[in-house]
Amino acid sequence: MAMRPIKHIDVVKGMKVSELVEQMKEAGFGARKIGEAGEILREMIKDKDCKKFFGVAGAMVPGGMRNIIIEMLKNNYVDVFVTTGANLTHDLIEALGEKHYQGTENIDDRELNEQGIDRIYNVFMKNRVYEKLEDFFEKNWLEISKTSNIKEFLWKLGSLVREDSILGICCKKKIPLFCPAIADSGIGLMVWGRKVQGKQINIDAFEDMKEIVDIAWTAKKRGVVYIGGGVPKNFIQQSLQFSKGADYGIQITTDRAESGGSSGAPLREGISWGKMKKEGKYVNVFCDAVIALPLIYAFVK
Amino acid sequence: MAMRPIKHIDVVKGMKVSELVEQMKEAGFGARKIGEAGEILREMIKDKDCKKFFGVAGAMVPGGMRNIIIEMLKNNYVDVFVTTGANLTHDLIEALGEKHYQGTENIDDRELNEQGIDRIYNVFMKNRVYEKLEDFFEKNWLEISKTSNIKEFLWKLGSLVREDSILGICCKKKIPLFCPAIADSGIGLMVWGRKVQGKQINIDAFEDMKEIVDIAWTAKKRGVVYIGGGVPKNFIQQSLQFSKGADYGIQITTDRAESGGSSGAPLREGISWGKMKKEGKYVNVFCDAVIALPLIYAFVK
Amino acid sequence: MAMRPIKHIDVVKGMKVSELVEQMKEAGFGARKIGEAGEILREMIKDKDCKKFFGVAGAMVPGGMRNIIIEMLKNNYVDVFVTTGANLTHDLIEALGEKHYQGTENIDDRELNEQGIDRIYNVFMKNRVYEKLEDFFEKNWLEISKTSNIKEFLWKLGSLVREDSILGICCKKKIPLFCPAIADSGIGLMVWGRKVQGKQINIDAFEDMKEIVDIAWTAKKRGVVYIGGGVPKNFIQQSLQFSKGADYGIQITTDRAESGGSSGAPLREGISWGKMKKEGKYVNVFCDAVIALPLIYAFVK
Amino acid sequence: MAMRPIKHIDVVKGMKVSELVEQMKEAGFGARKIGEAGEILREMIKDKDCKKFFGVAGAMVPGGMRNIIIEMLKNNYVDVFVTTGANLTHDLIEALGEKHYQGTENIDDRELNEQGIDRIYNVFMKNRVYEKLEDFFEKNWLEISKTSNIKEFLWKLGSLVREDSILGICCKKKIPLFCPAIADSGIGLMVWGRKVQGKQINIDAFEDMKEIVDIAWTAKKRGVVYIGGGVPKNFIQQSLQFSKGADYGIQITTDRAESGGSSGAPLREGISWGKMKKEGKYVNVFCDAVIALPLIYAFVK
Repeated sequence: MAMRPIKHIDVVKGMKVSELVEQMKEAGFGARKIGEAGEILREMIKDKDCKKFFGVAGAMVPGGMRNIIIEMLKNNYVDVFVTTGANLTHDLIEALGEKHYQGTENIDDRELNEQGIDRIYNVFMKNRVYEKLEDFFEKNWLEISKTSNIKEFLWKLGSLVREDSILGICCKKKIPLFCPAIADSGIGLMVWGRKVQGKQINIDAFEDMKEIVDIAWTAKKRGVVYIGGGVPKNFIQQSLQFSKGADYGIQITTDRAESGGSSGAPLREGISWGKMKKEGKYVNVFCDAVIALPLIYAFVK
Repeated sequence: MAMRPIKHIDVVKGMKVSELVEQMKEAGFGARKIGEAGEILREMIKDKDCKKFFGVAGAMVPGGMRNIIIEMLKNNYVDVFVTTGANLTHDLIEALGEKHYQGTENIDDRELNEQGIDRIYNVFMKNRVYEKLEDFFEKNWLEISKTSNIKEFLWKLGSLVREDSILGICCKKKIPLFCPAIADSGIGLMVWGRKVQGKQINIDAFEDMKEIVDIAWTAKKRGVVYIGGGVPKNFIQQSLQFSKGADYGIQITTDRAESGGSSGAPLREGISWGKMKKEGKYVNVFCDAVIALPLIYAFVK
Repeated sequence: MAMRPIKHIDVVKGMKVSELVEQMKEAGFGARKIGEAGEILREMIKDKDCKKFFGVAGAMVPGGMRNIIIEMLKNNYVDVFVTTGANLTHDLIEALGEKHYQGTENIDDRELNEQGIDRIYNVFMKNRVYEKLEDFFEKNWLEISKTSNIKEFLWKLGSLVREDSILGICCKKKIPLFCPAIADSGIGLMVWGRKVQGKQINIDAFEDMKEIVDIAWTAKKRGVVYIGGGVPKNFIQQSLQFSKGADYGIQITTDRAESGGSSGAPLREGISWGKMKKEGKYVNVFCDAVIALPLIYAFVK
Repeated sequence: MAMRPIKHIDVVKGMKVSELVEQMKEAGFGARKIGEAGEILREMIKDKDCKKFFGVAGAMVPGGMRNIIIEMLKNNYVDVFVTTGANLTHDLIEALGEKHYQGTENIDDRELNEQGIDRIYNVFMKNRVYEKLEDFFEKNWLEISKTSNIKEFLWKLGSLVREDSILGICCKKKIPLFCPAIADSGIGLMVWGRKVQGKQINIDAFEDMKEIVDIAWTAKKRGVVYIGGGVPKNFIQQSLQFSKGADYGIQITTDRAESGGSSGAPLREGISWGKMKKEGKYVNVFCDAVIALPLIYAFVK
C-alpha cells in the first residue's frame, strides 16, 4: 500500500486561510476532514451537471454565518436551500434592522429574563424583536396571505425585505427555498397571531415536496451539504432516496451517531438507503459549523 | 451548607429497576440525573393541574421504545404529543405488520443497499416496507384526504390502524398529536405520491398552532419532556414562550450545547426566553434515550 | 439474511434490572450495547482461561461506583486492576472516613472556593480531606516509604486501611493494582509533601510493566473492560500489543473517536495494533459509566 | 446592559488566518471561543510575569501538530511542558526518520493488522517503527540508563536526537518536560525491554513533582493551555491547587463535562479547587485540537 505521509502543519506569519486548509488536507483527524470537505465542495461547485442541495439547521444566523450563507446563495453554490424556521426568523429579524449580540453562557438566565434578553448559548437577542416582526406581518399581511405553499410564502417574505438577506436573495434569484417545519418558528408565531385574529391564509404542508423531488430525480448529478442535521438534512435525504443518490456529500455536525438520530448519522449510512451513491465522494466533519464553514468556504472562494 | 453524602450504589442480586433508580438519586454525574428525572416525572404525573407536553425526536420506534411510548400515552402521562414524521412512519410500518431488525453499524452499506436493507445505526429495515405504506395510503386515500390539518390527518391514520400503536392510541384517546414537519417523512412521501397522481388533499401548515398555544396558555401548570430535541422540542418550547413557562422539565439528549442548536440547549436557557419558569424544576439528562427512558419510566410506573 | 426483529422494551411494574437488560439486548442503539456488554462480561467471567483486565479512569469513586468496583474485585471479576491516582485518592479519602457529597454544577465556583468545597461536576468534596491524608501519610510514612514499585506502594496503602476499600481489597486479595501516573494525584501530593521535608522514598516508574506484560503474554485468553479511557486503558492496551490480543472487550466512554485520542478510539481500532483479536467479541458502550456500569453489573451478578 | 452586536463573518478571497480569527471574536458559539482563546494566548505570551504551562494529551504528533508544538517551544510560548508518553513516542519515531501516514477510519482493521499497519483514527503508522525504537534504545542505553528522574530521562532522549523535535528542543532549551505516565507508552515498552534483559535503570516516579510545584508556587502569575485533558491537564492542575491559581486558561477538548472526568471539566470548575483564579481569564474551546490549535496559533504568531 503506497501511503502519503502526514505533513505537519506549518503556520507561517500572515498565511492565508486557503493555505492553512490546503495544509490541513495532509494532516490528521478533523483537520484532514476540513481539507477533504474543501476539496469536495470545490469539485461540486465546478461540476456543471450537479444540483447542489444545502440543508442548514442550527442557529447559523445568531452564530454569525449569515453573510457566508448569503454569499453562497448569491454566487451559485446552492440550487436548493432547505433550512429551519428559526434561521429564517433570525434572518428576517436582521433584515428588519435588529441585531443579535455577543453574550455569554455563564450568566443567570433569570436575570436575562428580567432584562428581556433571550439567550442562544453565548448569543443574546432582545425579546422585543418580536414587536418588529409583528409590525412587519401586520403591515404586509395582505400580500403574504395570498401565497399557498411554503416556498412561495418564504419568497414573498423575501420580496418584502432587503436583498442582502437569506430570504431576499432566495427570492431574487428564485432559489427554491424549503422549510417543512415553518410553523415551528417565530415566523410561524406571526402567522398564528394573524390566524387567531380571524385572518385567513392557507399554506399547504405537502405542496413543496413535488419540486424538491423533481429536482432530485431529474438532475444529472446531486451534491449535498448538511449543516447540523435536523429537518433540513432529512428533507433533502428523503428527496434523494428514490433518486440515483448523491454524488457528493459534506456533513458538518457535532451530533453523535450512536443514539441513532438522523442528525448524527454519518453520510455512509445513506448508501444503504440509496440516498448517497455507492461511489459517491463524501466526508463527515465533526466540528462546530461556525468554525468549519468559514474555513471550508474560504478555501473554495 | 448541610450536604447529603454520595451513597455508593449497591447492586443486589434480583434488585428491581425502581430500586436501582432510587439509589441513583444519591449517586453522582449522570446517575443522579436519571434519578432526578424520575422524581420530576413522578411529580409531574401526580400534579393534576399540570398539562404534560411530550416532544419525541430521534428514531425511538426503531430503537425499541414503541411500547413504552404507547403505554405512557395510554396511562395519561401525556396531554400533548409532538413527534417527528419519521417516528410516526416507523410506527405506521409496525402497525401494518412490518418489523425493524437487530442489525449492526459495522457493515458495508453498499451490500445492505443491494439487499434492500436500510440502516439506522444498528437497526435495519427492509426497503420494501414502502410498498406496504403505498398500499395503505392507496386503499384509504379517500378518508385520509378529507382531513385539513396535521392533527386530524394523523388521527385519521390512527383510526385506520390498530389501537396499540402511537397513531392509534392518540386517535382513540383524542390526545393532541402534532408533527409540524410531517412532509419530511415516509408518510410525507406517500402523500406526495398521491399528489403527483393528481389526487387532492389540503393540509394546512399552520393550523395546529392554535391548539397547542391554547393548551400552553390556559393550563394552570405545564410540564415538558423532551427526547432528542429537534422540531418536537422547539415546537413545544415556542408554544410556551409567551405562557407562564414550564413548571417541570426533563430533557434527554446527547447533543452538545456549545454549537448553539436548540436540541443541545440545556433547559436553563429556556428561562431567559420565558419558556421555563424561574422556579421550575428541571433536569438535563445526557444519555442515549433508549437507555434513559426505560429507567425513568420503570421508576415511575 | 435471517434477521431478528427489534423487540420493543416492555416495562413491567416491579421488574428486575436483569430483566430490563435482557430486553435491552433485543432493542436498538445504546440499549442493545448495554445488553451486549452484559453478555460479554458474563462470558468473560465464566471463561476460566481468561485473565480479566479492568481499566478504570474517570471519577468513579466520587460518582458513586465504589461499592460496585469493590464487589467486582472481591468476587473475582478482576485479575489485573489499572486505575488513576485520582480514583485511588478518592478511595483512600473514603477509607479514612471522609465523604463525597451530592452537589450541583449550577453554582458559583467562587462561592464554593470560599466555603472550602471542591467541585467534580455535580459532586462536592471538602478541601479539608487533604488534612486527613496528610495525617495518614505522616503517621504511616515509615512503612509506606519502604516500598519500591507502584504496585507494592499501593498494596501497602491498602494494608493500612479497611479491607472494604479498593486499595484494601486489592491488597488483601493480592490483585495486581497498577497506576502508572500515581504522581498525578492527591496521593502523589502526599508523597511530594514528605519529599520536600527531606524524607526518602524511591518508587520506580517502570518496574510494574514486567508484571502486567507477563500476565498479558502468558494468559490463555485475555478480557478487557475499559471505563473512561485515559492511562488505565492505554496501559492495558500496550501490555496486550505484542500478546495474542484480547478475546473479550467492553469499553464504556462518552469520548469521541474523531479527534483521535486513545480514550475515544473504538475497540475495533485495536485489531490493527494486535491489541484486540481479529475474532474477539467486543462492544463499545457510549454512555456515562455511572449509568451503564450498574446495569451491566446487575445483569451479570 | 450595553451589548456588542454579532458581526457576521465576511470571508474575503485571500484573507489571512489571523483576519478570520479576528472576525471570529465577534461571532457566536465556538467561533467566538477560538477568538477568545487567541486573545488570551496573546496576552499570556506578552505577560512577562506569567509562567506558561502547556499540557498536551491526545495524539497531536500523528495528527500533524508536531511543527506547531516545536515552534511554540522554540519561541518561548512554553515554560513547562507536560505531555503523554504517546506523544513523545510519536515524536521520537519521527525524529528517527519514520513517518505517520494519511489513512482512513473506513477500513477493515483485520487487513491493516495483516499489513503491519497500526491505526489511529484516520492516521496510519507502520508497526515496524518499533524496531527503530529498539535500535535507538539498544544503542544509547548506557547514557539513557544513567538518568534518575523522568525529566532528565526525557531530556537525555532529546539530547540524542535532532533538535527540531519536541524532545530535542525541550532538551536544548532546558524546558521542564514532564510525563508522569511515561511507563504507559512505546518509550515505556523500550525501557521494559531492557529491564527484562536484566539491564538496570532507576527512574523515580515522584521526583518531578518538586520542580513543577515549585514553579507553580513561585511564579508571579500562571497561565495554562490544555489540549485534550488526561494526565497532562491534571498534573498541571494539581501543581496549581495550592498556589494562587491560574491567571490565564485555555482548554481545547471534545470531552463532555457531564460524565464527571477531569478531561471534560470546564476550567470554571477549577475555581472551586483554587486551581484557577477567581478573576482569571479563561475559555473552554469545544473543538478538535488539530483544527483549533492552528487557528489560535496563527492568530498569535
